[in-house]
Amino acid sequence: MKARVYVSFKPTVLDPQGQTIRGALAGLGHTSVSEVRQGKFFEIEMKPGATRDSAIREMDQIARDVLANPVIEEYRVEFLD
Amino acid sequence: MKARVYVSFKPTVLDPQGQTIRGALAGLGHTSVSEVRQGKFFEIEMKPGATRDSAIREMDQIARDVLANPVIEEYRVEFLD
Repeated sequence: MKARVYVSFKPTVLDPQGQTIRGALAGLGHTSVSEVRQGKFFEIEMKPGATRDSAIREMDQIARDVLANPVIEEYRVEFLD
Repeated sequence: MKARVYVSFKPTVLDPQGQTIRGALAGLGHTSVSEVRQGKFFEIEMKPGATRDSAIREMDQIARDVLANPVIEEYRVEFLD
């Protein structure tokens, strides 16, 4: 089973890295870009054998406890198969 | 117009950060995880007015020239509207 976990800053949290990229793009002539926000994602491969339900629960726990900081970040889990 | 650019290492490139996360997860009891690979994504908002064709071309250029390192990374562009 393969899952992807997407982690990004909450909309209310400032993203200085995204702002820096937006500034760099403007300097390179890409003035049509109005905002950039950066996030990260994790492609997680699980050993076969787990049920779909237990995999969903485990992935949610991994995302919440390890991959994302719930104070400032939000996450989304997506299963690929 | 809103686009997302996903950047990840090519499958042949080693991902030490992903391996570290896999090791940490195993130490926390998540032994069903067999592989982790990390990537990043960019949410890019474009000013209205551009045609879909020119937006696709510009986004592809931005991804190739600025956001990804084509030597070791691959990218995927996705439009949200």
